[in-house]
Amino acid sequence: MDLKQYIRDVPDFPIPGVLFKDITPLLSNPAAFCQVIDHLTRKYEQSSLDSIVAIDARGFLFAAPVAYRLGKPLVPARKPGKLPWETRSFEYSLEYGEAAIEMHVDGVGQGDKVLLLDDLLATGGTLAAATRLVESIGGEVAGVAVVIELTELDGRKGLEGYDVYSIVQY
Amino acid sequence: MDLKQYIRDVPDFPIPGVLFKDITPLLSNPAAFCQVIDHLTRKYEQSSLDSIVAIDARGFLFAAPVAYRLGKPLVPARKPGKLPWETRSFEYSLEYGEAAIEMHVDGVGQGDKVLLLDDLLATGGTLAAATRLVESIGGEVAGVAVVIELTELDGRKGLEGYDVYSIVQY
Repeated sequence: MDLKQYIRDVPDFPIPGVLFKDITPLLSNPAAFCQVIDHLTRKYEQSSLDSIVAIDARGFLFAAPVAYRLGKPLVPARKPGKLPWETRSFEYSLEYGEAAIEMHVDGVGQGDKVLLLDDLLATGGTLAAATRLVESIGGEVAGVAVVIELTELDGRKGLEGYDVYSIVQY
Repeated sequence: MDLKQYIRDVPDFPIPGVLFKDITPLLSNPAAFCQVIDHLTRKYEQSSLDSIVAIDARGFLFAAPVAYRLGKPLVPARKPGKLPWETRSFEYSLEYGEAAIEMHVDGVGQGDKVLLLDDLLATGGTLAAATRLVESIGGEVAGVAVVIELTELDGRKGLEGYDVYSIVQY
């Protein structure tokens, strides 16, 4: 099955000039969604992972079923102010302004091997910040996986040294 | 397994006086998370559902694995401005101010039987808005399911006439 037929181009979202990759047609096709989850499960079932870090919010949609399938702890990395307990935060720059990502300090244990999972790799700012955040609380980033990679935006540049995997490339 | 041991009380979050139910310990315990997903799967596997509507953002963590297990379309209902394509919005009142929830107009088909899934039923404002939103785009709410219900807040009042189900009650 060609997953690209379930990824919809939406021009000028969220700002003029951006061609947004809309994953909702993929989510609403059980065979396509199942293919993505099974693909990621097979890819990582032999890896010695301690947990799956899910990137807020679309990353949750893929990380949760993969964590379920792999039987691994699911750890949300969220936008600021969303996690209720003691958090560690990592700030980073976006094209326009600043952003931050947070995790609970007990989300990842010392030396834990962690897989970061998100829907999309674009410029990679969020995922790069998430790698630093995981490391700052003592984890080790064993891999970074996304469903879609926009290769032109060269998001891998900020993720050098990490094992980055994508299912679909544009 | 008593799921309550994996739900952490966090006082004064997000505002003073609120005792927040933190589900991250449950997410990070694979046996507990698996129990929740399998429970919801068994509960709805005999229902003639057409799709699962996942409430942004913690609802995604439970709705995605349940949709995967049931082989049903997964449809996100999101905070305003997050969905890229043509949306329908429903505004509702919170204790402090207004909120809104959005879905893609093609997320639910005419007459589709839909299960709404979220992590928590508190005052029920978001879930009640989601029922109206689903109906406004032609769907039929076959059920509303949450992991945790705060019975004191009487969220079922705004969901009268709907089949509301919770796994854990406080």
